Amino acid sequence: MATTPTRDDKFSFGLWTIGYNGSDPFGGPTRPALDVVEAVEKLDEIGAYGLTFHDDDLFAFGSTDAERQAQIDRLKGALDSTGIIVPMVTTNLFSAPVFKDGGFTSNDRQVRRFALRKVLRNIDLAAELGAKTFVMWGGREGSEYDSAKDVQAALERYREAVNLLAQYVTDKGYDIRFAIEPKPNEPRGDILLPTLGHAIAFTETLERPELFGINPEVGHEQMAGLNFTAGIAQALYQGKLFHIDLNGQRGIKYDQDLVFGHGDLQNAFSLVDLLEHGAPQGGQAYDGPRHFDYKPSRTEDITGVWDSAKANMRMYLLLKERAEAFRADPEVQEALSAAKVDELSTPTLNAGESYDDFLADRSAFEDFDADAYFGGKGFGFVRLQQLAIEHLMGAR
Amino acid sequence: MATTPTRDDKFSFGLWTIGYNGSDPFGGPTRPALDVVEAVEKLDEIGAYGLTFHDDDLFAFGSTDAERQAQIDRLKGALDSTGIIVPMVTTNLFSAPVFKDGGFTSNDRQVRRFALRKVLRNIDLAAELGAKTFVMWGGREGSEYDSAKDVQAALERYREAVNLLAQYVTDKGYDIRFAIEPKPNEPRGDILLPTLGHAIAFTETLERPELFGINPEVGHEQMAGLNFTAGIAQALYQGKLFHIDLNGQRGIKYDQDLVFGHGDLQNAFSLVDLLEHGAPQGGQAYDGPRHFDYKPSRTEDITGVWDSAKANMRMYLLLKERAEAFRADPEVQEALSAAKVDELSTPTLNAGESYDDFLADRSAFEDFDADAYFGGKGFGFVRLQQLAIEHLMGAR
Amino acid sequence: MATTPTRDDKFSFGLWTIGYNGSDPFGGPTRPALDVVEAVEKLDEIGAYGLTFHDDDLFAFGSTDAERQAQIDRLKGALDSTGIIVPMVTTNLFSAPVFKDGGFTSNDRQVRRFALRKVLRNIDLAAELGAKTFVMWGGREGSEYDSAKDVQAALERYREAVNLLAQYVTDKGYDIRFAIEPKPNEPRGDILLPTLGHAIAFTETLERPELFGINPEVGHEQMAGLNFTAGIAQALYQGKLFHIDLNGQRGIKYDQDLVFGHGDLQNAFSLVDLLEHGAPQGGQAYDGPRHFDYKPSRTEDITGVWDSAKANMRMYLLLKERAEAFRADPEVQEALSAAKVDELSTPTLNAGESYDDFLADRSAFEDFDADAYFGGKGFGFVRLQQLAIEHLMGAR
Amino acid sequence: MATTPTRDDKFSFGLWTIGYNGSDPFGGPTRPALDVVEAVEKLDEIGAYGLTFHDDDLFAFGSTDAERQAQIDRLKGALDSTGIIVPMVTTNLFSAPVFKDGGFTSNDRQVRRFALRKVLRNIDLAAELGAKTFVMWGGREGSEYDSAKDVQAALERYREAVNLLAQYVTDKGYDIRFAIEPKPNEPRGDILLPTLGHAIAFTETLERPELFGINPEVGHEQMAGLNFTAGIAQALYQGKLFHIDLNGQRGIKYDQDLVFGHGDLQNAFSLVDLLEHGAPQGGQAYDGPRHFDYKPSRTEDITGVWDSAKANMRMYLLLKERAEAFRADPEVQEALSAAKVDELSTPTLNAGESYDDFLADRSAFEDFDADAYFGGKGFGFVRLQQLAIEHLMGAR
Repeated sequence: MATTPTRDDKFSFGLWTIGYNGSDPFGGPTRPALDVVEAVEKLDEIGAYGLTFHDDDLFAFGSTDAERQAQIDRLKGALDSTGIIVPMVTTNLFSAPVFKDGGFTSNDRQVRRFALRKVLRNIDLAAELGAKTFVMWGGREGSEYDSAKDVQAALERYREAVNLLAQYVTDKGYDIRFAIEPKPNEPRGDILLPTLGHAIAFTETLERPELFGINPEVGHEQMAGLNFTAGIAQALYQGKLFHIDLNGQRGIKYDQDLVFGHGDLQNAFSLVDLLEHGAPQGGQAYDGPRHFDYKPSRTEDITGVWDSAKANMRMYLLLKERAEAFRADPEVQEALSAAKVDELSTPTLNAGESYDDFLADRSAFEDFDADAYFGGKGFGFVRLQQLAIEHLMGAR
Repeated sequence: MATTPTRDDKFSFGLWTIGYNGSDPFGGPTRPALDVVEAVEKLDEIGAYGLTFHDDDLFAFGSTDAERQAQIDRLKGALDSTGIIVPMVTTNLFSAPVFKDGGFTSNDRQVRRFALRKVLRNIDLAAELGAKTFVMWGGREGSEYDSAKDVQAALERYREAVNLLAQYVTDKGYDIRFAIEPKPNEPRGDILLPTLGHAIAFTETLERPELFGINPEVGHEQMAGLNFTAGIAQALYQGKLFHIDLNGQRGIKYDQDLVFGHGDLQNAFSLVDLLEHGAPQGGQAYDGPRHFDYKPSRTEDITGVWDSAKANMRMYLLLKERAEAFRADPEVQEALSAAKVDELSTPTLNAGESYDDFLADRSAFEDFDADAYFGGKGFGFVRLQQLAIEHLMGAR
Repeated sequence: MATTPTRDDKFSFGLWTIGYNGSDPFGGPTRPALDVVEAVEKLDEIGAYGLTFHDDDLFAFGSTDAERQAQIDRLKGALDSTGIIVPMVTTNLFSAPVFKDGGFTSNDRQVRRFALRKVLRNIDLAAELGAKTFVMWGGREGSEYDSAKDVQAALERYREAVNLLAQYVTDKGYDIRFAIEPKPNEPRGDILLPTLGHAIAFTETLERPELFGINPEVGHEQMAGLNFTAGIAQALYQGKLFHIDLNGQRGIKYDQDLVFGHGDLQNAFSLVDLLEHGAPQGGQAYDGPRHFDYKPSRTEDITGVWDSAKANMRMYLLLKERAEAFRADPEVQEALSAAKVDELSTPTLNAGESYDDFLADRSAFEDFDADAYFGGKGFGFVRLQQLAIEHLMGAR
Repeated sequence: MATTPTRDDKFSFGLWTIGYNGSDPFGGPTRPALDVVEAVEKLDEIGAYGLTFHDDDLFAFGSTDAERQAQIDRLKGALDSTGIIVPMVTTNLFSAPVFKDGGFTSNDRQVRRFALRKVLRNIDLAAELGAKTFVMWGGREGSEYDSAKDVQAALERYREAVNLLAQYVTDKGYDIRFAIEPKPNEPRGDILLPTLGHAIAFTETLERPELFGINPEVGHEQMAGLNFTAGIAQALYQGKLFHIDLNGQRGIKYDQDLVFGHGDLQNAFSLVDLLEHGAPQGGQAYDGPRHFDYKPSRTEDITGVWDSAKANMRMYLLLKERAEAFRADPEVQEALSAAKVDELSTPTLNAGESYDDFLADRSAFEDFDADAYFGGKGFGFVRLQQLAIEHLMGAR
């Protein structure tokens, strides 16, 4: 069945996701810790292909070198025995008290130096494990109070830090690219680079922009009320979609990290359609990991944890099926055409048309019948939307 | 008195702002139209220096050439007799039925051609009037339904259009730069380039990026729950703040266009502080027009219209006074220093420090006392915020 | 087919919905007016059973008595010839300039008197047409500025007005109940009685509370980020769901009035499930009109208008089918039971248990094993949610 | 100085507020625990009059009777030696794993019984300490998934529980009233009784409604985008403002619990004005505790904790000063009168006017000049708002 996951689907999970212990702002853990070896073995069993992690997920902050190595070795053993890979690694610069004002952009210079060293060390590990993407979520890079942070200086420090990292991986010959993960707020009142747009813009200021893209997360953009699918389309357009975090969010509120598709179902449908069929000439627009960055609900025990992990993959595959049927439906094709959706790919100017030619074309302006659009020339968008929803609902 | 506006303050108003007739989604006009000559004369009287407009504000959509010219001449007469200038012009691609699916990115190619011609014609007028900035708000460029718009194609069409415009002004020798105005939604369900981050990112894809910046609006960013001051800081950092729209918004809801400072007062305070004192070495960070893009409340008659226009300028000047006092207060300076706000301007690496040097510095990592940040090394941000609020309240 | 609407489905539409001309804050009409006779005939043709209207929808504000009567007669003729009924009538106290600060709660007493007279006249018409529900949406009852409205006085004036109306319908023997429609904002910055909770609370202060319930609208509650289904459950619990407005909204933003189900699809599914199967012992929990208060998108012509009208009904019926299958699925029943959803209907106290008995039950507290809930006793909510989504998607 | 707090100001703090250790969803504590005796002594020193607490704040969940009593005795000692009182007590039904699906409305009946026993025990303690208000925040009463919770059954269980509590305090002769604290979401996806409106409505269903009011929190209502001042006005109007939680929130996002006034400053100003001068005939509208339910930012050490505690009180007193000056300003009085704010307190009907009289008054309708409101009869609300803001800024 098409909805049984295989490694070709490239499903990966963060160790902190299936390992989430249920702690939240109003309550402590409801589940014990999950061992990394158990995590890898179980992910293999359910059809995932990858595990990702923050350094502190694998070995606690402040571990001795020996403790750290022991955990790395245990992970490697599990990877070897299962074939699970580590496509992405990331660094925790947000949990320990030292990072209370951030890492790369803490007002405290000593903290910035410590953070940068922590990341450099973790890049070596990422390279050793074969990870191709290094994610940077700057969850503590921000502030609650406008006078407490010089944002221009913060961006300059962020830039200084990541330029150094890019120099480092280049010199070392590591096959690693960096993906910045935006978020508007939580845990800080306002976070630097709050949306994928801000993050893409920032990458253009860097010394090696080609090494920097983004890792957008469904819920993070939706926390700003933004359309995730539209944002991903811009990221693809600008060649910046290096990695993606799939999960679910129900509107503008705290970061929910629900199962993918358990949030805004319509937008999840259009997202999968875009990823799978949205290349300019059709076909897959993104071929990287389908990475789930979600939290099993705090109400669940370990059975619920794995049920929720499987639900993520099943949702993706069900949506993929629906999207394929949508694209294949002749009535949909006819409706898309009636709505001129494809006409948008035709250049506005004629081939070779100069602005002088264009200004001389009276049919474009002087003789154009703008009044025909009152009471006429409807686009049929609602019909198209209804067809999309019916496919999403399996009703066609 | 410092709160009496003068031309040096560079306050400008859109003709559509003071001319807003009160029409909204649930009711028609409550005020008659405002004539452009009266507008210019009154703006002069109250201390503004500039008027801005959409083509359709000055002469109705579908005007004959003669009607159009008559209105242009009337405007010029008023400008001449008062000394009011036109620092910015913009084009209406959103009100007429023909633009119901947008202008530059309508699915309908004929509409796109018509829109582009309308803009070209208006650029000539802008140049004739000496405007230095040409704003583009693509309020109808977007969609309600994900399948109704190919966002990648839309961005490509947008790019095609503005590349042509840049070629045109370059060839004509016009001293004009373009400023894209982002907005997340309303009147479309989702609008292309929804935040200033997305817009800055997009400008980097253009053939003449130096001609393209942004015109962010207070309320538009706040409709996405984003911190406007922080966004402006990024725009300044990237050299993209070409123009600014000041107004007020009370949270995530419909576009309110209140008087500047009548929305999020704290953020207005930090914004004025940034614009006036936020250059890297101190001093003015932005020297362009302080443009008010607001709507006099629908409950008001013409007296309320001009009261509200004056309120915008008075709010700016009061906030400027407060920001100056804030910067000048020794206790504030001490608190900023205690919070290490200035330390963020110090590079994280030592001068000339290579990553090898840095990796060899045991004080940065191995010997660094991260535990000292538990229960200690508080930043004092709340005290700083309290000082800021007290200055805002005139309580110090 | 179960998804073909019939009169038994009790689908009704506002005349202002199918008649929406496309006007919005940034553009004028894109469609001509729709005649009421055409509206009634077409509604009959597509399977609706009812038409609703504001007075000003049928005859323009300021009509002469003769003009008003002519339109009433035309409506009656169409109702007679089709069998379409008018289950609800409402009054426009928000469009005309006179209502710029509201109707029942305008600061201007003469306006309040005029508004109350307008409503009394319209109640007579409602009774004449056999409407059983009289809706009151106080869209202009509110303010933009906290000092501009004494909210306690406003509530007292609202109460005075509706107490009079209740006295009037009682004395006249009209079989009419009133339904207050809450909305948090737009067109006012903040509207009185912003959520269904506030409105229900207010009805309890009235002289004849039994005559007052609510008319909640999907999008209005979702504009405050609230769960519509949960709110409807409280309204049902308190016996206050007198009428309902179905439409679609995509998160916290301006009032979108999309087709029902084209907004938050998951919540639409649980809503239909609640309305159809949510009575305490199962079965229909609400048997009134399924009233669509939506707007055909501004991009559409008349074909799109009717396509969108049909889409509302089809969405409701599709969701009803899905909800029935969900309830009938044995695995769902098992999962509901595992999640103890039904156990919540069992009283917490034993039959006849006094608090002394309860305090003496050591198993309830002293001997209760609270620790068993750490790492155990998972609720299986994610599995249940996945089953719900799969039914919604027609995937089971 | 008027901004130095005294006991007459009735400022109280939750033990969990000043005792907040900095733990949040993305990081652990940054500060050690605060001892209750130190808390009481310091509150006395800075001018507060009251301490409030959850049972689990004073003695850890699962404490033995001896441990519990020891902590109660230590608290009592500190109260005796300082004169600090305990005006309010509340119960933690949200932190321990056993409450992962709520307390009074958990799907698990055994949990409900345990929760009810925990509350009964805590009510005895509240009475012993002389608390007059017992707050109930049902932070875990809710769900993430619509099918996981039968909301009607949940309300019925909530009602069963609180009816029992009311019976209990009545029988025991305790001088205690209950205050329900609403919140829309976080930590649950959707919480039961999400706004103060829903909570007031619910109290009307209870056996002893007079014993039940609300404890609204600034940030909780603002998380739903609602105007807190307007909500408090409705609560006062309905006689339901039993207690109040003051803090700061910057828009629709996670629960920030900032210092009072550090969020929406304008709304804080109008709130203090309402509490201090908003009784129908003027004068104090609320005379209970001014309770701060905030969190010292995670970036702060113990110095910052107490700075933030003092900032709350200073903000309240500064705003009170500003509100007094606003009310005393003759120009404000004139503007309020011009805006007819006071006219709203005049009944709409004449004294003794029947609806027949009213219908016969042609000046109210037939002869009323509604057209005069187009272009005329402006309300002057913007001018009034500007005066309010200037008073808030100390600029008049």
